[in-house]
Amino acid sequence: MAAHTILFDFTLDKDKTSDEKQRLEVAKILRNELEHVFPQLELAYSMESPENGYFAVLHENKDTVITCRIFQHGLLTLNVEYFLPDGKEGISFDTMRTVELILRQKFDSDRSKYLPPIKRGGYIDIYMTSSDERIIEYDIDQVVYEARSPFQKIQIMHSKTLGNMLLLDELQNIAESDLIYTETLMCRGVENYEGKEICILGGGDGALLYELLKENPKHVVMLEIDEIVMQACNKYLSVICGDVLEKRKTDQYEIIVGDCVEYLKKFIADGRKFDYVFGDLTDIPITDAPVGETWDFIRTIFEHSFKVLKPDGKYLTHGNGSTCKVQLRLFEEQLDLLRPKVKYTTTKAFVPSFMEEWLFYQVTFA
Amino acid sequence: MAAHTILFDFTLDKDKTSDEKQRLEVAKILRNELEHVFPQLELAYSMESPENGYFAVLHENKDTVITCRIFQHGLLTLNVEYFLPDGKEGISFDTMRTVELILRQKFDSDRSKYLPPIKRGGYIDIYMTSSDERIIEYDIDQVVYEARSPFQKIQIMHSKTLGNMLLLDELQNIAESDLIYTETLMCRGVENYEGKEICILGGGDGALLYELLKENPKHVVMLEIDEIVMQACNKYLSVICGDVLEKRKTDQYEIIVGDCVEYLKKFIADGRKFDYVFGDLTDIPITDAPVGETWDFIRTIFEHSFKVLKPDGKYLTHGNGSTCKVQLRLFEEQLDLLRPKVKYTTTKAFVPSFMEEWLFYQVTFA
Repeated sequence: MAAHTILFDFTLDKDKTSDEKQRLEVAKILRNELEHVFPQLELAYSMESPENGYFAVLHENKDTVITCRIFQHGLLTLNVEYFLPDGKEGISFDTMRTVELILRQKFDSDRSKYLPPIKRGGYIDIYMTSSDERIIEYDIDQVVYEARSPFQKIQIMHSKTLGNMLLLDELQNIAESDLIYTETLMCRGVENYEGKEICILGGGDGALLYELLKENPKHVVMLEIDEIVMQACNKYLSVICGDVLEKRKTDQYEIIVGDCVEYLKKFIADGRKFDYVFGDLTDIPITDAPVGETWDFIRTIFEHSFKVLKPDGKYLTHGNGSTCKVQLRLFEEQLDLLRPKVKYTTTKAFVPSFMEEWLFYQVTFA
Repeated sequence: MAAHTILFDFTLDKDKTSDEKQRLEVAKILRNELEHVFPQLELAYSMESPENGYFAVLHENKDTVITCRIFQHGLLTLNVEYFLPDGKEGISFDTMRTVELILRQKFDSDRSKYLPPIKRGGYIDIYMTSSDERIIEYDIDQVVYEARSPFQKIQIMHSKTLGNMLLLDELQNIAESDLIYTETLMCRGVENYEGKEICILGGGDGALLYELLKENPKHVVMLEIDEIVMQACNKYLSVICGDVLEKRKTDQYEIIVGDCVEYLKKFIADGRKFDYVFGDLTDIPITDAPVGETWDFIRTIFEHSFKVLKPDGKYLTHGNGSTCKVQLRLFEEQLDLLRPKVKYTTTKAFVPSFMEEWLFYQVTFA
């Protein structure tokens, strides 16, 4: 069950909407045409204002409710909303297209639009937003797994085309479709991991560890705080993590469940050094100033990571959606503050389950 | 300028929405809380029905209009709509998030949602739909080119992350981000084009021709009907087509502007044969039965194409979004009808500018 909201809009000649009389004329045309599709349509309410145009409520048996606004700037919006029980069919696309085409013609409009029904209140949330807050509707058809760990809400959703997706606190993290994410993070084909010592901060989905092990490193240590994430990914994301999360220690790698900062401090005290450190932790927060817990965490990670890097070592990490210029600049400013000084390059890739292009950083000592 | 529509919804305990008295109580809470954000809020209209719940219109000076429905099944929808002139800021994300969180708490709701504002009536259409009719908001910031040829509406839009995008009759066609589309269509790395004779049907964006020429074929002939598409792509999509659309004939290739069926008939009459024929024409129509002009066209293309293929030749073409099972099945049924018999394999790829996974066909004589 869900409520369906269908949004139409029509650009009208301003001469047709600039005064009350004209707007009422348009409203009359609208009502006449809608009655062909909704035969029991009634006008419940209307209001007018010279500054804000016309508004009306129409309905069929108080079931399908249609609201309409005619703005004096030459725009008409039409919202159709009804409740759809499970298994019932809503208004068909053919009907919507017909409504659009007929009204467009009657209004002599040269621009119109309707959006597929927005489904509200359903058990599965199919709408997510990109890093720059655009609406994206996913083809998610199943909640595969859901749990709350001491650290975060963990969900595995199934998408018809992206496969199983990991969501942490309701944000897209990685999906079966996203080998490109891991390959761009590790700069596959550019970096040579053979015989190298590597430390992964985070990486609980196991994908980075799985791909790195294919390149014959000397040893990889992974520091992940959330046991439940690893259990979920081991079970439902083996397409991208293979069986690396099955065992916690082999000759090739060790997964340590714990706070990576504590372990980094220990590595620093022990003088342990790595050729590569991967920051595969929380995304950069969407804020306009580099303050708050997450930014403090990012700075702490930076400072400690560079202390366990060999002089020619590399720190590789993900940034954010490539349209998030402000956040990326803040991130780079934190890098610029580091001493000894560092320099960085960036790479980017369109990540299928993010439905957007993502930026990645490769940081070395300057 | 655009109208902004912000959609919220809250799942409520059914015990709070099942009778009129309870719904009025919820409506009262809603109004009280909304008044903190919209201090001049007025209730303009409300209606009730045992079958369809509560509906109300609230507004501030008839400018911001808020409609609310409380369905007896335990769902409350809230639509906030206002007109936003160019350069003005709408309701901030922080405000929307606050509204959501406070109402969620007041309603004791365990599920709520708000979508970023839906922008309506703007000059640039940023909402497109996937092949299975999902809403996708693009980061399009500019109309680079727009024309109407004798065959179709042609647009080049600029996306911040996908680069320039070609739209034909308002449908996504190819973008600078979409090398993967061309590589999957041509099965790069699997097929060997060296010294081969190739015919492209359509392909007016030039990307396929450009990529094929890198593989040293003997000769490519491309049959494209729309001169204007080629001019637009030559000018605005050179990232994916290089300069192949600059010249119409070289030792390596020939671009013929005309109806491909006419030229295929000519090739058949001349006994001209190819190692590869590419169907890079119109997408499969979204219909439930294989009837109508486009399906007739697809069948005509199939029949003629296989008559110009060498016995061990291949017909390579795109299908549709991989979720469109019905349409893909119809497409495959048309292939099954061909005589002599053919067989096919499929490949798929997530195409960035489509924001979905696409299916491709490789067809040979059985």
